[in-house]
Amino acid sequence: MNYTAILQEIYQQIKRLPVTGTVTETIPELATIDPNKFGMHLTTLNGDDFGIGNSDEKFSIQSISKTLTVAMAFSLLGERMWERVGVEPSGNPFNSLVQLEYEKGMPRNPFINAGAIVVADMLVSQLKDPKKEFLDFVRMLSGSPQIDFNRSVAESEKQTGFRNVALANFIKSFGNIENDVDTVLDFYFFQCSIEMSCKELAHAFFFFANGGITKSGRQVLTQSQAKRLNALMQMCGFYDESGEFTYKVGLPGKSGIGGGIAALYPKNFTVTTWSPRLNEKGNSELGMNALELLTTKTGMSIF
Amino acid sequence: MNYTAILQEIYQQIKRLPVTGTVTETIPELATIDPNKFGMHLTTLNGDDFGIGNSDEKFSIQSISKTLTVAMAFSLLGERMWERVGVEPSGNPFNSLVQLEYEKGMPRNPFINAGAIVVADMLVSQLKDPKKEFLDFVRMLSGSPQIDFNRSVAESEKQTGFRNVALANFIKSFGNIENDVDTVLDFYFFQCSIEMSCKELAHAFFFFANGGITKSGRQVLTQSQAKRLNALMQMCGFYDESGEFTYKVGLPGKSGIGGGIAALYPKNFTVTTWSPRLNEKGNSELGMNALELLTTKTGMSIF
Amino acid sequence: MNYTAILQEIYQQIKRLPVTGTVTETIPELATIDPNKFGMHLTTLNGDDFGIGNSDEKFSIQSISKTLTVAMAFSLLGERMWERVGVEPSGNPFNSLVQLEYEKGMPRNPFINAGAIVVADMLVSQLKDPKKEFLDFVRMLSGSPQIDFNRSVAESEKQTGFRNVALANFIKSFGNIENDVDTVLDFYFFQCSIEMSCKELAHAFFFFANGGITKSGRQVLTQSQAKRLNALMQMCGFYDESGEFTYKVGLPGKSGIGGGIAALYPKNFTVTTWSPRLNEKGNSELGMNALELLTTKTGMSIF
Amino acid sequence: MNYTAILQEIYQQIKRLPVTGTVTETIPELATIDPNKFGMHLTTLNGDDFGIGNSDEKFSIQSISKTLTVAMAFSLLGERMWERVGVEPSGNPFNSLVQLEYEKGMPRNPFINAGAIVVADMLVSQLKDPKKEFLDFVRMLSGSPQIDFNRSVAESEKQTGFRNVALANFIKSFGNIENDVDTVLDFYFFQCSIEMSCKELAHAFFFFANGGITKSGRQVLTQSQAKRLNALMQMCGFYDESGEFTYKVGLPGKSGIGGGIAALYPKNFTVTTWSPRLNEKGNSELGMNALELLTTKTGMSIF
Repeated sequence: MNYTAILQEIYQQIKRLPVTGTVTETIPELATIDPNKFGMHLTTLNGDDFGIGNSDEKFSIQSISKTLTVAMAFSLLGERMWERVGVEPSGNPFNSLVQLEYEKGMPRNPFINAGAIVVADMLVSQLKDPKKEFLDFVRMLSGSPQIDFNRSVAESEKQTGFRNVALANFIKSFGNIENDVDTVLDFYFFQCSIEMSCKELAHAFFFFANGGITKSGRQVLTQSQAKRLNALMQMCGFYDESGEFTYKVGLPGKSGIGGGIAALYPKNFTVTTWSPRLNEKGNSELGMNALELLTTKTGMSIF
Repeated sequence: MNYTAILQEIYQQIKRLPVTGTVTETIPELATIDPNKFGMHLTTLNGDDFGIGNSDEKFSIQSISKTLTVAMAFSLLGERMWERVGVEPSGNPFNSLVQLEYEKGMPRNPFINAGAIVVADMLVSQLKDPKKEFLDFVRMLSGSPQIDFNRSVAESEKQTGFRNVALANFIKSFGNIENDVDTVLDFYFFQCSIEMSCKELAHAFFFFANGGITKSGRQVLTQSQAKRLNALMQMCGFYDESGEFTYKVGLPGKSGIGGGIAALYPKNFTVTTWSPRLNEKGNSELGMNALELLTTKTGMSIF
Repeated sequence: MNYTAILQEIYQQIKRLPVTGTVTETIPELATIDPNKFGMHLTTLNGDDFGIGNSDEKFSIQSISKTLTVAMAFSLLGERMWERVGVEPSGNPFNSLVQLEYEKGMPRNPFINAGAIVVADMLVSQLKDPKKEFLDFVRMLSGSPQIDFNRSVAESEKQTGFRNVALANFIKSFGNIENDVDTVLDFYFFQCSIEMSCKELAHAFFFFANGGITKSGRQVLTQSQAKRLNALMQMCGFYDESGEFTYKVGLPGKSGIGGGIAALYPKNFTVTTWSPRLNEKGNSELGMNALELLTTKTGMSIF
Repeated sequence: MNYTAILQEIYQQIKRLPVTGTVTETIPELATIDPNKFGMHLTTLNGDDFGIGNSDEKFSIQSISKTLTVAMAFSLLGERMWERVGVEPSGNPFNSLVQLEYEKGMPRNPFINAGAIVVADMLVSQLKDPKKEFLDFVRMLSGSPQIDFNRSVAESEKQTGFRNVALANFIKSFGNIENDVDTVLDFYFFQCSIEMSCKELAHAFFFFANGGITKSGRQVLTQSQAKRLNALMQMCGFYDESGEFTYKVGLPGKSGIGGGIAALYPKNFTVTTWSPRLNEKGNSELGMNALELLTTKTGMSIF
């Protein structure tokens, strides 16, 4: 498969598309990003790299970090973790409290905010120095020791994240948060503010496509665990647009409101995109288009 | 892959499992079925057949019929059909009216009852003799001209299906049913009462795994359309246990309250099970176990 | 209190108000009514009558009939009736199915459609000839033997009442309807299609204000029962605008989409209005204004 | 009316009732109260006082304080206050977030927690020294300058009030809280921790029954405003048991989880009860019984 040519084609087509989405305004610090940035990177399991556009530029991974905290928690806790968070799609917007109320503080899945906050609480309980150890984990996954978080973005989220404070306290009222709400949210805003390039992210996702083994050869999850998280991404990675993404793209993946998407074709490749314009559902508009073009052109979909 | 041996092993393990589920009581006519029946059938894309237990015995396919009406409607209407029914998981039990109210009569997906009733309405509008033409379609798909529906099961559903009557009238009140509610439900109860064996069902599902081309070589959907319905089955085939099934089994599939499950591994095989004992969510308990064993033993999962 | 002058004043003020509401389109037969009709009638407990405008013209009482079926059911069944229908406000629009689903087929109160259908089912079970006996009851209450129902309105509701068919079947699916759904709805559409004038309705409501004793001196409810139904009207008589009505008018009452309102000041008077223009919530716009003016001018509110 | 004898009778009957309710465990500091306390006090509009049992003992007024903050906000803001909080019953438990989500951060009424927090925010915005000025207002209403709040109860609420923190942040995320969430909640927990005796509370409620004029003759609300708040108490004073209370007792009132109830018969009397055992809905079990006995014995109900 000539990925260089394919990515080139996609890039040309993407640039000609009319743009309608807008950059997130939820987090003031992110609102100032150039909306016209576009990067894409594909890494095959034999280690070949294909990048285009702004694929080496760092962006805020935001909710994509949820896949990495889940992986770390899964490696530490195993199946036990599912006693506190479900594996079903939510059918509701990502920060809905309604479902949480009907289901007594047990979030539907770890990729909605409520679930990710519970996973953050698990890591805070399990790790001695949660921020440092998680950052080390992400650096190890991607093989990039210079990956870091963005303090002003984390601060910006803290200043405006009333909905997340509400979620965390609501879950705490049901007894499904063990630590101080402030500590848990501090970690949660930290993980969301981590910055990576498309290339770094494609490398970090390598182990999902590779049966749990990282690009550098380290087994962080069992093959079965990796498959399970891929299944979970497929079902729940795009909030209430997960069905649309599955229907059109047919690959497991996860989006973030920083405009990033990371996806993978098990046993074949990982692929990431970055374009800050979001559609109504909060997913990157051009990123979704680019990935749909990729599976159409290559015929590579899991279905 | 030695499927004969694998199915034999699964059968032995399944027989030793403690049974807790119960046969459906929703439809009186189905409540009298021997709960200990168990059949399983696998058909590879080169046409090899592997069956075990009661795999040649007919059972009521019930909601599995939804995949076949959707395929027929998709072949007739193309993408237009998604203007009246969505492609997102519902996150709610299969016959919930709540979501339908919030979303103004547009069902979340065609595999919950509300969505299947809308699809039934599409077929009633499109076909001259809907029952005959749909039955012919099913017979053609599976290559078994003697497949038929069960009149007393259809009657039994009509007598007790108050929830479905409620759903249909509710959707009609939003204008998303074109024909008489009675006519639409008559067709819907008919499709649910069709009886097939595991083998016939595995053959009927062949085209989903084979890029839209039936076992006898007829193209009923484009490759892209077949992939899209597989994606939809993955997301929504098991009601609010779809995530659980995806997480544990990792294959697109659809269950019915008659105890049947039909699933597929794209480009490889179709597989069906039948065991009437249902778990709390209304899915076949042993069928789900058998399929989990299959993907564990063969390593064949899409993720 | 000089009610003649007060009604005259109200009438003058009402005529000068800008009109924004629209006649119901839910029931085609009612959509043709002259939107500018306005009638008002007040009957004191000493039997004095004060009418103005089109107060002697018949209109479709619609949901106001719910108060009379509840009174009849209460007189027949006593407190037992509350085992099948609640006494709490619903906080939702009058034909919502959501609450019914969460509360397993037990309607919140007898003044939302779901509750009124359950009450209709009670009367169908209790009475030999439900329509005739209920009509006799209404004639007796108001002292007007020529009160009748409107066959074409009843038919019109039957043709378009998909939401009510949905509600009734939904409740039946929970086991809270005893009779055939068709029979119950036939009675329900009948009761809604009864036609009365403001004057007849004010007379029919007399017993609510008079401790359960009709204008002609017959005790149909105990004093305690009458008080309880007044309390219920106060809480639930105006759908999800009940609070607004209580807050502004401060009298127990009930509205109908035919544009009628019947209200009462216990131990003092009953008062009815008719104006077909409805506000967004489905209550008569000018009727609510007229009643607010009445309590402001007379200072007669229960609070 | 011989209130001395009536209260005596009620007291005797209440003491013989089997007790099933339990003291609140939501607020640890309140969980230690003697469950067998019972007090009742009635104050007529001519100023006569009738007390029985522990009617002079202080208890935590909790949610009853919501009526007094609403009165103060209404006196300061007038009708403008209803732009930020509704006047409709909620039909849901007192601390539900579901409705708030569907209605975009505008609480249904000021007597559910969400609404009371918005009212607290109004007072924090309007007053220079909110705690002191509100306490002065309460002391003035009841004529008891020694009324105070309980610091350890306020602290106890702060430690465990995760649901209220969730509510406040959730409302803030919709923009309907102006001040810092911590400041608003600090005031809210303060108001809930105020302690009063049945007698003091009956005196404080005097102005509701007296057209807005306090026992000492000061006009704090207009007659129309007082009537409106009475109507609001009638509709919403007892959470999702408001209908039950209205149906059985037929007086406007408000309960608190400290076991208190304050109610009134407009133009006649105010009446308060205290008994810490709560029923399932969070209302004082014996208090509700006592008030039902009172209206049955005296025939004094507004309906």
